[in-house]
Amino acid sequence: MTSILIQNCHLLRRADPVLIETHRDILIEGAKISGIFPTDKIDPAKVDEVISGREMLCLPGLINTHAHIPMVLFRGLAEDVPIERWFNDFIWPLESNLTAEDVYWGAQLALVEIIECGVTTVADHYFYMDRVAEAVQQAGTRAVLGSAVFSSLGLEGLQASADFVERWQNQADGRITTLMAPHAPYTCDDEYLRAAVEHAKRLNVGIHIHAAERVSQTTSSLESRGETPIQVLAKTGVLDVPTIIAHGAGILPEDIELLKQAGHVGVAHAPKTYLKLANELTPIAALREAGIPVGLATDGAASNSTLDILEAMRLMAMLQKFTSGDPEQMPIPTVLDLTFRGSAAVLGMRHSIGAVEEGYLADLILVDFGGAHHQPLHSITASLIYNARAGDVQTVICNGQIIMQDREHKTLDKEKIIAQVRQNMDRLATRIPEKRIQVYNP
Amino acid sequence: MTSILIQNCHLLRRADPVLIETHRDILIEGAKISGIFPTDKIDPAKVDEVISGREMLCLPGLINTHAHIPMVLFRGLAEDVPIERWFNDFIWPLESNLTAEDVYWGAQLALVEIIECGVTTVADHYFYMDRVAEAVQQAGTRAVLGSAVFSSLGLEGLQASADFVERWQNQADGRITTLMAPHAPYTCDDEYLRAAVEHAKRLNVGIHIHAAERVSQTTSSLESRGETPIQVLAKTGVLDVPTIIAHGAGILPEDIELLKQAGHVGVAHAPKTYLKLANELTPIAALREAGIPVGLATDGAASNSTLDILEAMRLMAMLQKFTSGDPEQMPIPTVLDLTFRGSAAVLGMRHSIGAVEEGYLADLILVDFGGAHHQPLHSITASLIYNARAGDVQTVICNGQIIMQDREHKTLDKEKIIAQVRQNMDRLATRIPEKRIQVYNP
Repeated sequence: MTSILIQNCHLLRRADPVLIETHRDILIEGAKISGIFPTDKIDPAKVDEVISGREMLCLPGLINTHAHIPMVLFRGLAEDVPIERWFNDFIWPLESNLTAEDVYWGAQLALVEIIECGVTTVADHYFYMDRVAEAVQQAGTRAVLGSAVFSSLGLEGLQASADFVERWQNQADGRITTLMAPHAPYTCDDEYLRAAVEHAKRLNVGIHIHAAERVSQTTSSLESRGETPIQVLAKTGVLDVPTIIAHGAGILPEDIELLKQAGHVGVAHAPKTYLKLANELTPIAALREAGIPVGLATDGAASNSTLDILEAMRLMAMLQKFTSGDPEQMPIPTVLDLTFRGSAAVLGMRHSIGAVEEGYLADLILVDFGGAHHQPLHSITASLIYNARAGDVQTVICNGQIIMQDREHKTLDKEKIIAQVRQNMDRLATRIPEKRIQVYNP
Repeated sequence: MTSILIQNCHLLRRADPVLIETHRDILIEGAKISGIFPTDKIDPAKVDEVISGREMLCLPGLINTHAHIPMVLFRGLAEDVPIERWFNDFIWPLESNLTAEDVYWGAQLALVEIIECGVTTVADHYFYMDRVAEAVQQAGTRAVLGSAVFSSLGLEGLQASADFVERWQNQADGRITTLMAPHAPYTCDDEYLRAAVEHAKRLNVGIHIHAAERVSQTTSSLESRGETPIQVLAKTGVLDVPTIIAHGAGILPEDIELLKQAGHVGVAHAPKTYLKLANELTPIAALREAGIPVGLATDGAASNSTLDILEAMRLMAMLQKFTSGDPEQMPIPTVLDLTFRGSAAVLGMRHSIGAVEEGYLADLILVDFGGAHHQPLHSITASLIYNARAGDVQTVICNGQIIMQDREHKTLDKEKIIAQVRQNMDRLATRIPEKRIQVYNP
């Protein structure tokens, strides 16, 4: 069992109320944190590897609760367009270009970026997910993976999605867990959702689904069928299993009661995508007040442009202040609680990730606050939220393995991956009219 | 006269419509751009210095149209508070701690950050401005400086502000220009504003002033005196000289006509500060439609946290989409036009900065798009707006002088500056109750 000692760091010990400890040593044995000690209590000669944490803040690895990571392949191709055109004229035609091999290299490219941003866990929802799982296996990160399906793929599609769960659940030393991933109530009919729930129950996994992504989806669902998207999830049994709901900006007050009753539902909030596509915001305050966890997300980079959770954290905090008209909303401790504990809870991993504590999985990052943009460092927590950039993340450890050290990748061959992706850029950017994988008409 | 050749770069030649040229060499002679050529037309043996622009995008140096750069000294000290407390309980008490020496080191620290963010010109509005000017002189950047005054400082204060103009106008090889800087219509009475205009006219300079910063200021001005802040500026003659208006989120439709008639007024937009303090947004679309230039700004780092204009550009674009509910608002060409030409016009420098063109001042930056977060680079302009980070700025040239090359500072001693500022952190953070430089009660 390999042991690592992080020496003499600052440590975000608790988010709300904030507790920063200084001069701390963190001992990692195998995949877990085995103890936190005042500096110099542990003999470095007795551990396999020693990392200096001097002038660094040690944080739990960041968590992205909803993404489509291979979509980095399409970033920059659908800008300044409304949601209908974004789907029907750009993304769904572009996705008809994808091969399994594209997804493999796209996922690797995304994982390079994710690691550089300090993210150790991502909940991903896409196609050709075996290849995403292979990329995650290699990258050393943690992931919660679901193979996305629409009704149009038929029950065989759903079966394939369930087979993916069987192949990959708890693989890669437990770093990969899985979910069923029906796309959305507007692309999966009720019978299809019920069948997805049956698979989830049989396999003892949850469901990751888009629902009430924007207010117009809720309105149109009410008009066409007299039910909100969340009511559809409740009726079809989706909420009977642990569920990650992507976006939920169209969640109504009456929906919140349903989500609360379910007891194991979390909502993924991806603020940059909402800004760029002029989406409304997830009702974060109301959800959290009802005890429903909310986590941070990027969504895919075709809308968000990047996979930067530090940016999502900052935007989330600032937008809650701006839209409420109240600068006291979303104060620092709440931002940190949502970012770490909230995101872990959305993935049902509240007791294993999202905190640097004895017994937790050793998913942690070291962030350098020495840059001019942090000086003078009156408040390390304010600077983390409002000043930190992805480039400040120095070292990333996941499951007790160092995957980036002093910004050098230890698991992925960045140059080779970028070169490989560039080779296929032109083919991937080609849009063939009327050739699309779905039609957006919620 | 020193010459520099930037070889084989991509060049943002025009913002709207976007024109990116590839394989371009840029020849700089003295302080100006003397020509743009296809790569290999100029013999590198005939120039003093050659910089490779390979895989880099050359852009005009970024412009910050409203800041208080020495306020980096206070960043992180006033978070999660409403504007009244921000001023009265935090910033104005903290500013009573400032010495001229503090401002000198604070300005240098800010200039380190500014250069690292690719900013070459800043319009700054603060106290002890001789020391800011000295820091700018040393840093090699360009600045439009005004020494801030309130009525409470009396006419001697205004005279001192005018003396600053006389000492520094066109100093530092023309890199420093100056303005009169009465703080705001709510801290300067009408007579004081009139006196400031007299000085400005006598000295042939403009005015930099906060006005209609938020809707509540306009409302309270209407209630207390029956005029909007912009009407006060018109009546007191401020709009008779070239004017930079900071923020203007409380500008009403009837104000826009006054600004348009004036013909030489620009408005500085600082979106991150507005988000953090739950301010409304500058009415950018209406101003631009009336032909009134709008530029990007950070405001001080005590509200904005950083001095990052790339972040301001991204937030500006996204917030226009979000608040209008229309993702087609503020498309890429408009964002770029506002960022470069708009910001230059706000400072009255439309014909000398904000474009990489023959005859323009040689203020330019090289941005690296090789990072994983830009790959694959389907759209260099989308990636500039939505993906680029300050850390991607590699090289900064101002007035024909290289001030940062491959992220290494050429003019400022970063380590020494940070060490110096840290020494005084505790003293600067002390708040003495009731000891404040002003009271906010607009």
